[in-house]
Amino acid sequence: MQDSRSKPCSCPSLKLREVASMYFTMVAAFLVILVVALQGSAPRGSEFPYKVPLDPQGLLELSWNVSYPEQAVHFQLLIRELQFGLLFGMSDRGEFENADLAVLWSDGHNSYFGDAWSDAKGQLHMDSQQDYQLLGARRAPEGLYLLFRRAFSTCDPKDYLIEDGTVHLIYGILEKPVRSLQAINTSALPGGLQRVQLLKPNISIPELPGDMKTMEITAPDVVIPSQETTYWCYMAELPAGFPKHHIIMYEPVVTAGNEALVHHMEVFQCAAEFDSFPHYNGPCDSKMKPERLNFCRHVLAAWAMGAQAFYYPEEAGLAFGGPGSSRYLRLEIHYHNPLVFKGRRDSSGIRLYYTATLRPHDAGIMELGLVYTPVMAIPPGEDNFMLTGYCTDKCTQLALPAAGIRIFASQLHTHLAGRKVVTVLARDGRERQVVNADGHYSPHFQEIRMLKEVVAVFPGDELITTCTYNTEDRSRATVGGFGILEEMCVNYVHYYPQTQLELCKSAVDPGYLHRYFSLVNRFNDEEVCMCPQVSVPQQFYSIPWNTFNRDVLKSLYGFAPISMHCNKSSAVRFPGEWEKQPLPSITERLPEPVPRCPPPPGPQPAAPVPLNLGQLRR
Amino acid sequence: MQDSRSKPCSCPSLKLREVASMYFTMVAAFLVILVVALQGSAPRGSEFPYKVPLDPQGLLELSWNVSYPEQAVHFQLLIRELQFGLLFGMSDRGEFENADLAVLWSDGHNSYFGDAWSDAKGQLHMDSQQDYQLLGARRAPEGLYLLFRRAFSTCDPKDYLIEDGTVHLIYGILEKPVRSLQAINTSALPGGLQRVQLLKPNISIPELPGDMKTMEITAPDVVIPSQETTYWCYMAELPAGFPKHHIIMYEPVVTAGNEALVHHMEVFQCAAEFDSFPHYNGPCDSKMKPERLNFCRHVLAAWAMGAQAFYYPEEAGLAFGGPGSSRYLRLEIHYHNPLVFKGRRDSSGIRLYYTATLRPHDAGIMELGLVYTPVMAIPPGEDNFMLTGYCTDKCTQLALPAAGIRIFASQLHTHLAGRKVVTVLARDGRERQVVNADGHYSPHFQEIRMLKEVVAVFPGDELITTCTYNTEDRSRATVGGFGILEEMCVNYVHYYPQTQLELCKSAVDPGYLHRYFSLVNRFNDEEVCMCPQVSVPQQFYSIPWNTFNRDVLKSLYGFAPISMHCNKSSAVRFPGEWEKQPLPSITERLPEPVPRCPPPPGPQPAAPVPLNLGQLRR
Repeated sequence: MQDSRSKPCSCPSLKLREVASMYFTMVAAFLVILVVALQGSAPRGSEFPYKVPLDPQGLLELSWNVSYPEQAVHFQLLIRELQFGLLFGMSDRGEFENADLAVLWSDGHNSYFGDAWSDAKGQLHMDSQQDYQLLGARRAPEGLYLLFRRAFSTCDPKDYLIEDGTVHLIYGILEKPVRSLQAINTSALPGGLQRVQLLKPNISIPELPGDMKTMEITAPDVVIPSQETTYWCYMAELPAGFPKHHIIMYEPVVTAGNEALVHHMEVFQCAAEFDSFPHYNGPCDSKMKPERLNFCRHVLAAWAMGAQAFYYPEEAGLAFGGPGSSRYLRLEIHYHNPLVFKGRRDSSGIRLYYTATLRPHDAGIMELGLVYTPVMAIPPGEDNFMLTGYCTDKCTQLALPAAGIRIFASQLHTHLAGRKVVTVLARDGRERQVVNADGHYSPHFQEIRMLKEVVAVFPGDELITTCTYNTEDRSRATVGGFGILEEMCVNYVHYYPQTQLELCKSAVDPGYLHRYFSLVNRFNDEEVCMCPQVSVPQQFYSIPWNTFNRDVLKSLYGFAPISMHCNKSSAVRFPGEWEKQPLPSITERLPEPVPRCPPPPGPQPAAPVPLNLGQLRR
Repeated sequence: MQDSRSKPCSCPSLKLREVASMYFTMVAAFLVILVVALQGSAPRGSEFPYKVPLDPQGLLELSWNVSYPEQAVHFQLLIRELQFGLLFGMSDRGEFENADLAVLWSDGHNSYFGDAWSDAKGQLHMDSQQDYQLLGARRAPEGLYLLFRRAFSTCDPKDYLIEDGTVHLIYGILEKPVRSLQAINTSALPGGLQRVQLLKPNISIPELPGDMKTMEITAPDVVIPSQETTYWCYMAELPAGFPKHHIIMYEPVVTAGNEALVHHMEVFQCAAEFDSFPHYNGPCDSKMKPERLNFCRHVLAAWAMGAQAFYYPEEAGLAFGGPGSSRYLRLEIHYHNPLVFKGRRDSSGIRLYYTATLRPHDAGIMELGLVYTPVMAIPPGEDNFMLTGYCTDKCTQLALPAAGIRIFASQLHTHLAGRKVVTVLARDGRERQVVNADGHYSPHFQEIRMLKEVVAVFPGDELITTCTYNTEDRSRATVGGFGILEEMCVNYVHYYPQTQLELCKSAVDPGYLHRYFSLVNRFNDEEVCMCPQVSVPQQFYSIPWNTFNRDVLKSLYGFAPISMHCNKSSAVRFPGEWEKQPLPSITERLPEPVPRCPPPPGPQPAAPVPLNLGQLRR
């Protein structure tokens, strides 16, 4: 292991000699192959289907591909205006502390590339195992292309484990030459984070019919407000008498130049019970926004940065048009404009591909998780408090067809305290399959994600959705509800064939919660008002939180019977007894996945790879 | 990966060709070195200081050494009467399921060695990564010696992680030829388990004084009872007027031929308040045993199978003799005789090495953990319920000298439900150091263990001892107490200089426990009698156990204030307020140790190594 802190790289010739001598001291039986193609080499994973800008100006552009056979990601990073290097990497939630980084840096004369990690204070260290493998560097008119590879898992405890779900990418720009990697102070660097789903599923694209038509739901030349965050609402309308069609695909339409500003977009269908909706085009939080737009909540299409076109499976399409379906659509665009650009015009939106030749099945969307009710609450000051919502065997038994349904996509949803979401399928008390999981979930990055594998759900199956919350910055309990400071725990699953079951969610039995309040009062010698006129949120707010009251609430949620919402629509339940239902009892958990680690890439020493990039800027 | 199930090894020449061809297909840059020295080679780790018989007849004898620089154990296994092979390995608690095994087997013609693992049903599989490295095999008049090596940790999820503390070794004997590894049925094999501390500390032996004398406390030609388990008690006596000495070392004296029967031995000193003790020589559980022998409980020396001589650090010795010290000693020998040998005679015991030239410090023994009281209880049906006992900052502040004490050895103690024990040192709310930990603790294997590093404890430090219990086979609560079906959680730490502090232990505040009983009653609508005349054990026995009552008990133990025993002797407390003390608050835990994995031993395929041992027996 070489620690270049003790040997600053100020003298390039010495540097090279050191590296060379290190190689010669290594076990002779190993052949060290260092491929650093400096000019015009073809990238190993020849195509990069996924692309995302890292910074709000789009100066850094990341493309990548995923090789499941190799269990590795190939990255191509375009640096448009290289100064003295940059940091690129991953961390749990986008912090620069405890991050896993690929670093390109220059001491003013020479450039180096290395795999590094940052400690809890943000101090950089060269990694003893070099797992970001440099495959090439190429100058082009538009900038410098860096090509490198990272295995999903490396078994190096300093490395980030690339998993399904959200990955928080981070970048930092070196504006001055640095003596050595260790001399880089991450806290002083300009930089930021970008959330992406790195491990895109490897799905073959279904065949598209000849009679396919397109419809663009796009913003009508909006001037993006000069503020960091804007949710823009625009109402569109289907032609009168538009018959039933199937949406079979959709894709983003992003105005050129605004790729780094358009964060995510959704198209909602309005409620069929209203004959008409006002035409509106403005910020969603404006006082001028008509109240009725709140009834446009049925998702038709959703896209977020880094996502590609969304294809329905060939057996199904999403119905729109026809009787019983509203003609009104609401487009919502989240503009993320942290540099507060002024006067940028945008006509982004979503292009729907639809067909009149209906596919065998209508696709449906079902809500799993927790009912929006304050009885499910999170104490303050918690770093990972879990709440679980159940879709019970009794409900699926009643509501699903004998042949079952197929879940092919999923959109996870919480409010601001959400940190992880997972839905697991259980059968006969045994967990069988993860439906969708995101261990680095962010409420700021809610995509509809295609599942890697379609999940079949049969009558009698259970779907268990668990959300993990962080309330460390809060001083009072966070209760369930619609408010932005209240919480939700929902998985919108996209499936076919459509059934009547729209909601399969649960909440703790209110009677048992009442016993909890009473117990807390008695145990702590506190007088929490339990008069019936006091609301559940008020009761939660008055609890003197300590580890005992917190732990007993956890125990209650893990023990008390539940109230089930096994509903045809948000208000209409399936017939049956749904109160005081027993919690599903799980006798066998899925095993924790054990990361497979490919052998490390040769016996590389912990030394940077010198690059011949010529003199960098300035 | 080769699966030899599909290619049974019946044809030796084909076999060798297969192995050879496999090697040639491997990456040419790697040099494969396979050293299988079949005759008379010297073992790589040339000495094996530790030795233990595996089976009750002593036909299998394991010797080993530990290399901390290499992070590996070298084993030498002597097989006195080899039949058609054997299994040797490790598992969590000595089971043949989920075990990590080195297997030597013969198909009647040829012999093979391989690293295997057994699944949850005990079925053997060849390991895809071969981590038991065969170093040699050697025939000698006394039997076959197998030499092999295993790294402590391999990062192969199928492998056992060799940690400090107890390791459950298992062995099985192949009495018939087997077609292949996969054809071995572990459930039908004769075999057994042996517990050892594999990772002996690497301690240099202190210099011994010239005036050192020895004294043997040995059984007087006892006929070992023909029953599986006997605890034999023998009373010995120091000469009248024997002045104060320091025991500076002791070692086992085991009668030749009885190495596999003498399981552990302890020498206790009797209480000084009695002038004399009856001479007794017989089973400890005999009705004839005089009651007064129960007052001989102060440990002077303890040895268990596999342990070596015990040396006191050169600054300290264990005082015995002189005024205020009883002249009476009790030797207790545990004979483990599962094959029910009859008429075996034994004169084993312990040889004490002592000196009249007193060392600078008397050594002392302090009890950490939980008070022996029923208020600390474990619900039935639990697979890993934890109880924690505290030695608080307030007590160490009062009782320890400013220069602190040095803990150099530790003996962990629970009754039959104990599965793990750990003591951690905390300072200023931060965990600093593990004093002693055993993640595979067995109540049947309680040794005094030298610590790898002496632990310095200063006034204001906290010592936190946590025991993990398994009560899956019990139908009612297990309360704390002296009974064999009650539980304890104790760490006897050996330290110097001796202080007045003999006990530093805790238990939950009884008032809070009463609130718990009351809460459980109210929450579950059960009528648990809480009348004052009902004992705490009776109250625990009457609880209708469910996950809620269990979890709330856990929460109570993690929250409620404690009653401290900060005592000079079992009955005399240090002055101060010791009731309703706050639980130590730990803000920073020790990080989980991350196993360091050496690179796997070359690119070996998952194929057995053929051995030329000639025709095996029959």
